Amino acid sequence: METRRLRVGLLGCGNVGGSLARLLVEDAERITTKTGQHLELAAVVVRSRARQREVAIDDSLLTTDAQAVVSDPDIDIVVEVMGGIEPARGLILAALKSAKPVVTANKELLANCGSELFEAAATAGVDLLFEAAVAGAIPLIRPLRESLAGERIRRLTGIVNGTTNFILSRMADDASVSYQDALAEAQSLGYAERDPTADVEGFDAAAKAAILANVAFGARVVAGDVYREGISAITAADIAVARRLGFVIKLLALVDHDDGPDPSIAVRVHPAMVRADHPLASVRDSFNAVFIEGAAVGELMLLGRGAGGMPTASAVLGDLLDAAHNLTTGSAGRTVTLRQVPLRPIDELTSPFYLTVSVIDRPGVLHSVSGVLGRHRVSVRSMEQERTGPDGRARLVFVTHEALERDVQGCLHELRGLDVVQQVGRVIRVVDPE
Amino acid sequence: METRRLRVGLLGCGNVGGSLARLLVEDAERITTKTGQHLELAAVVVRSRARQREVAIDDSLLTTDAQAVVSDPDIDIVVEVMGGIEPARGLILAALKSAKPVVTANKELLANCGSELFEAAATAGVDLLFEAAVAGAIPLIRPLRESLAGERIRRLTGIVNGTTNFILSRMADDASVSYQDALAEAQSLGYAERDPTADVEGFDAAAKAAILANVAFGARVVAGDVYREGISAITAADIAVARRLGFVIKLLALVDHDDGPDPSIAVRVHPAMVRADHPLASVRDSFNAVFIEGAAVGELMLLGRGAGGMPTASAVLGDLLDAAHNLTTGSAGRTVTLRQVPLRPIDELTSPFYLTVSVIDRPGVLHSVSGVLGRHRVSVRSMEQERTGPDGRARLVFVTHEALERDVQGCLHELRGLDVVQQVGRVIRVVDPE
Repeated sequence: METRRLRVGLLGCGNVGGSLARLLVEDAERITTKTGQHLELAAVVVRSRARQREVAIDDSLLTTDAQAVVSDPDIDIVVEVMGGIEPARGLILAALKSAKPVVTANKELLANCGSELFEAAATAGVDLLFEAAVAGAIPLIRPLRESLAGERIRRLTGIVNGTTNFILSRMADDASVSYQDALAEAQSLGYAERDPTADVEGFDAAAKAAILANVAFGARVVAGDVYREGISAITAADIAVARRLGFVIKLLALVDHDDGPDPSIAVRVHPAMVRADHPLASVRDSFNAVFIEGAAVGELMLLGRGAGGMPTASAVLGDLLDAAHNLTTGSAGRTVTLRQVPLRPIDELTSPFYLTVSVIDRPGVLHSVSGVLGRHRVSVRSMEQERTGPDGRARLVFVTHEALERDVQGCLHELRGLDVVQQVGRVIRVVDPE
Repeated sequence: METRRLRVGLLGCGNVGGSLARLLVEDAERITTKTGQHLELAAVVVRSRARQREVAIDDSLLTTDAQAVVSDPDIDIVVEVMGGIEPARGLILAALKSAKPVVTANKELLANCGSELFEAAATAGVDLLFEAAVAGAIPLIRPLRESLAGERIRRLTGIVNGTTNFILSRMADDASVSYQDALAEAQSLGYAERDPTADVEGFDAAAKAAILANVAFGARVVAGDVYREGISAITAADIAVARRLGFVIKLLALVDHDDGPDPSIAVRVHPAMVRADHPLASVRDSFNAVFIEGAAVGELMLLGRGAGGMPTASAVLGDLLDAAHNLTTGSAGRTVTLRQVPLRPIDELTSPFYLTVSVIDRPGVLHSVSGVLGRHRVSVRSMEQERTGPDGRARLVFVTHEALERDVQGCLHELRGLDVVQQVGRVIRVVDPE
């Protein structure tokens, strides 16, 4: 087969960009033989040309002028792996406008400006591909856009942040490891940033949840729409109790879709209790996974590396080959069209809850506390009472039946006002995909 | 967007065909809204028009004349879910020849005549899609063909037969359940056929392994090339010992690719010991999963329903929408090109082995047996000796280090000749994907 050489402009040469450059340079012959596509790395936009790089990139390819690359008529496809909103947004829009397909791994940009970018791609009739933006190396976006295009998906439940999954796995493996210990270990291994806020407080997962809502349901959702709680308050004690009750604690991104007569979508990120025998419970270390429930397909789970230079570059390469295929066959990729779907706020969602209440251990306390739960329509499935020390205090651990979030919040508010209640401790939703 | 109505000819209306017909009829409006594709069920080929069907299909669509459907110029896309080699093969070739894209779920046909069909599709420049043929509902073929097109895949390890996974899971859950009990239960639930040979002896998994070798590595492999052992000899005792050693037993389909200077491929199906903490070990009941190891992507696992009318129909629908997209945009799908890759026979493969030897319990026996192992270069990692009764017999359970299959077979042959050896029991390979 005659292969046309396609010239790739790479915006950004950090961990992912460097790994992609290495694949394109070192594996060029193998990729061409295997796929029939001849990709040529034609320009690499860097912040500084002087910096030492692990991969040997011909000096003449390096440039600091991104604008020149996206408007260069000799560049056929643009890959954006700079991250951040600007200048990435402007560069991608410029590339699309000049009918160049774009591959990006930029979750922050997509989760905030996805709608604008998708429209620009549709208008230009060229591909905007972003497999690497959610759950890194896992083929997820393409299956959702293509394999499951006709599927009536009900819910996506994802472990989409490797840092927090690593921390929670370490705490689950070893009861003596505190949240701070596990975070420090994640930092020393390079899994967590020095400022870990984006990961541990769920901002990263929330951005990915918004993109999943875009792709799976065509819902116009941005990162800021996503209800979000992080894992920094989870203690070794919570994890120990979870284990005793047959659960593990995971930070989940959940997208629920109701396509009934009154359609709505709910998008949230929070720690959750997951049954120990559920496939998501076995997702260890820094792995990511997304569990998909659909009317016809049943249950699917896709598991793999959510980050890392080479795994992410692998996903970018898959997109690049797809864009190349579409360019050489003169076909257009599929577009993402977003529409407004009412967002159901967290208050209106229901789930079972795990909650702990520290009380003064005297007769009638359980009666008072359970009275509050009952008045707020929160029905108890199981309760344990632990004496916490010789000081006359006890801890009540409840798992409730399915309850409305608003009722549980009302209940907590009233509990805080009881004089026998010293502290309302952890509240963790129990998520039971199927 | 203006949507062109595409007319679908459905060959076969059994479990999968009936489910697909239901999706196309009952979900037509939703599918069109969501995907922009207007699929119309235009003809359904059945064996008998008289039979009662669960799904309400307009009587005028039913026909027994498959040939007329594939040559009808008003039919745009053909779906083949009849199964078996003929007449499916001839009908698919005829459809491709008249430039109609074909979607098929027919693993038997692809595993035996794939090469001919792929060439016919490439010649005609139309799609031949078959996501449902391996691991049913799991998006696997598309990720392998597209997302991982540029990836250097080293190994695929699949649980691709739900019946055997159900049987092995039941035996693992309950030590009192024998192979025969679990098989009978699978039959009563409809997971196993009355004649279960194709499933339990690994023929079904071998066909799927051949297709995976085609798709992931472009290797010209047919079902008959695949080394194959089933699970019918696995006992509750094997499963109990496996658990004690930290393993579970799974029927695996393995495709190993060596793309070095002397490229080769090894394709096999056999029971294997899998580490209990490996993601594949947690694949329960009748679920399927495929674990993928690649140079850049790292480790991926895709899990879901491997069979069942609706899950399989969901995969067929995904392909149908892909074919429709390509038809409406005038683009050609990707083709599969097969080439000869040397097949490495099982004799030349290495792995650790689990093996049991029943012996007469007298001094010096272990010395004799271990001498045989040593002479055949089979090095022991661990050994347990169990007294099996008051009759002076004992069972030796070995787990070896990595050993060459040929050496192990030679070793077994010599062991059978020792007078202290009463029986060489189970030999199960230990598979340790990473």
